Amino acid sequence: MSDLDKKFMKEALLQAKKGLGRTSPNPVVGAVIVLGKKIIATGYHRQAGMAHAEIEALSKLGENGARGATLYVTLEPCNHHGKTPPCTEAILKSGISRVVIGMKDPNPHVAGCGCEFLREKGIQTVTGILEKQCQRLNEAFIKFISANRPFVISKSALTLDGWTATSTGHSKWITSEKSRDFVHRLRDQVDAVMVGIGTVLADDPRLTTRLEKKTAKDPKRIILDTNLRTPITAKIVNHDSSEDTYIVVDEKLGMDRRSSFLKKGIKLILNPAKNGRIDLPVLLDHLAQMSVSSLLIEGGANILGSFIRENLIDKFYIFKSPKILGGDDGIPLAAGYGAKRMDESISLTDLDYQRFGDDILITGYPIYPF
Amino acid sequence: MSDLDKKFMKEALLQAKKGLGRTSPNPVVGAVIVLGKKIIATGYHRQAGMAHAEIEALSKLGENGARGATLYVTLEPCNHHGKTPPCTEAILKSGISRVVIGMKDPNPHVAGCGCEFLREKGIQTVTGILEKQCQRLNEAFIKFISANRPFVISKSALTLDGWTATSTGHSKWITSEKSRDFVHRLRDQVDAVMVGIGTVLADDPRLTTRLEKKTAKDPKRIILDTNLRTPITAKIVNHDSSEDTYIVVDEKLGMDRRSSFLKKGIKLILNPAKNGRIDLPVLLDHLAQMSVSSLLIEGGANILGSFIRENLIDKFYIFKSPKILGGDDGIPLAAGYGAKRMDESISLTDLDYQRFGDDILITGYPIYPF
Repeated sequence: MSDLDKKFMKEALLQAKKGLGRTSPNPVVGAVIVLGKKIIATGYHRQAGMAHAEIEALSKLGENGARGATLYVTLEPCNHHGKTPPCTEAILKSGISRVVIGMKDPNPHVAGCGCEFLREKGIQTVTGILEKQCQRLNEAFIKFISANRPFVISKSALTLDGWTATSTGHSKWITSEKSRDFVHRLRDQVDAVMVGIGTVLADDPRLTTRLEKKTAKDPKRIILDTNLRTPITAKIVNHDSSEDTYIVVDEKLGMDRRSSFLKKGIKLILNPAKNGRIDLPVLLDHLAQMSVSSLLIEGGANILGSFIRENLIDKFYIFKSPKILGGDDGIPLAAGYGAKRMDESISLTDLDYQRFGDDILITGYPIYPF
Repeated sequence: MSDLDKKFMKEALLQAKKGLGRTSPNPVVGAVIVLGKKIIATGYHRQAGMAHAEIEALSKLGENGARGATLYVTLEPCNHHGKTPPCTEAILKSGISRVVIGMKDPNPHVAGCGCEFLREKGIQTVTGILEKQCQRLNEAFIKFISANRPFVISKSALTLDGWTATSTGHSKWITSEKSRDFVHRLRDQVDAVMVGIGTVLADDPRLTTRLEKKTAKDPKRIILDTNLRTPITAKIVNHDSSEDTYIVVDEKLGMDRRSSFLKKGIKLILNPAKNGRIDLPVLLDHLAQMSVSSLLIEGGANILGSFIRENLIDKFYIFKSPKILGGDDGIPLAAGYGAKRMDESISLTDLDYQRFGDDILITGYPIYPF
């Protein structure tokens, strides 16, 4: 892989990032067209249904404008008719002579076809340039397309001694404003956020995205609430947002209480329960059917404990703030039983440490012991 | 402050560091003698009773060798007769024309005298060069000399979700070898380490310093054990070390059980107890009388909880390893009640984040809320 290929693929990645949180259930994709070591056009996939990145870039060039050029694209160009015609044909028609691809299409039904088509037609193709970065950028899409489940992200904020709240449930504010701003950026990028009824009762959150940029979007908001204890006056029931609030309840719950929520426009998801708790794998399958490709769990301890014990978290964001409560009576990250031996704990890999003021954010991907 | 002064003070700091853990109850001090922008001699205080840094540096120069030179010294030169004659007189005699001082002598009985003496004798003196670094290097000495108490350091290793051990007490190994090596370097630098009887019973530690360097030294080892439950077979009772093991017991404890420990050469510290626990301020005063100027608390949760609630920790070292136990049944940093509100938690300041492999070490100084 040449340094030049890497350099232009980085540009394509930057293009792709512009679409983060906007393209679901599609991947984010960026494209750069290069002629004589110079970028002559860029593009990215803005939204499902809109032009693919390659097409957006090509459309900026006049007829024959791309002839002999190299196309850098973070994801293998599609070779099938979806909401838009196949990109491979447009590439062929444009006269592009070389295509450099970040990662192959992870869709188990189409993998390899785009590349093969281009090669058959005599276009030089290279794949796997900055592959890991390209995969990381589309980690949610990859999970969604290959497992047909949302990519599940957990976000927690803990004191140095490991508490998310004091013994009285007080948690405002563990982290700095900078850290909290990052959480809003996360909400802006995921399809849905989820909390448990405990968090609703304790914190009465809105779970909307509060960012200065005008294009910020709210995620779908999902409450796990087996017995529908959410107060009808809760902010999450009465907030003003373009996205819906969903309450997941036991499918055996009677109709009487449900109606007042339905009248308010709240969507109820009837889900099987096991031992008084929502059956999570069933729920995740259901969310996938709702096209939720990424789900951000924001607590509390009961939900986190259940998701962790069922090996359902794909990515952890853990904020550490330089505070110490100094006792054993705070509220921990996860409720329920934990690992019995240190070598049976979950290890995080591909770690990243990032500072937000005095806080530190630890990001990692879990390796489950069993 | 000129860049040149900073540059040479940095050299003096490096000299001083060579004495870390060797000079107690004296401070570490480094000195550099500069003539015409060139270092002509260096020195550091090696051990209580041995030459002070300035004298060591001067002794490397022949008569008149320091004439007209500048002396950089991390701590104000002494002006009183201790185990050695006053350094100020030696400086005067050497013909040094300028003295650059990192920090003033924090000893409440002598502060300012060295400087004043030199100025009166017509030597140009500058103070406060890299003052914070010089103070940090002698933080234990400063606490010891000004409060007549040891500088108390806490060291803990926690999973990301805040547990020092699993529900079964299993903790081997939370942290990486690199982190554990750092702990041995800490032991090498402090006068004493302390654990509670719970840690002795659970882990049977040796608490010796295991480092490759030949000059490594063991700290005094102190066990808090109100009712003398330490097994006579415990490693800490039977280890091979040049430094003593101390067991702190309730002063009301009968003589019968004590004798078997005394026969083994273990030192017992009889200390008042309150509500079945050793009275910590009384103990710290006693340790100061034993010339313990720095004390490293290595756990467990009961000791940490008591020290924290009494605002007795001066510095926290908290290792975080990228593991998650995922429940609420692990063993926390500190036992007992914690802060009731987030704004009543202990804040750490002057934070430092350091990576040891995949672990992260967070170092900070507590600001107690009350």
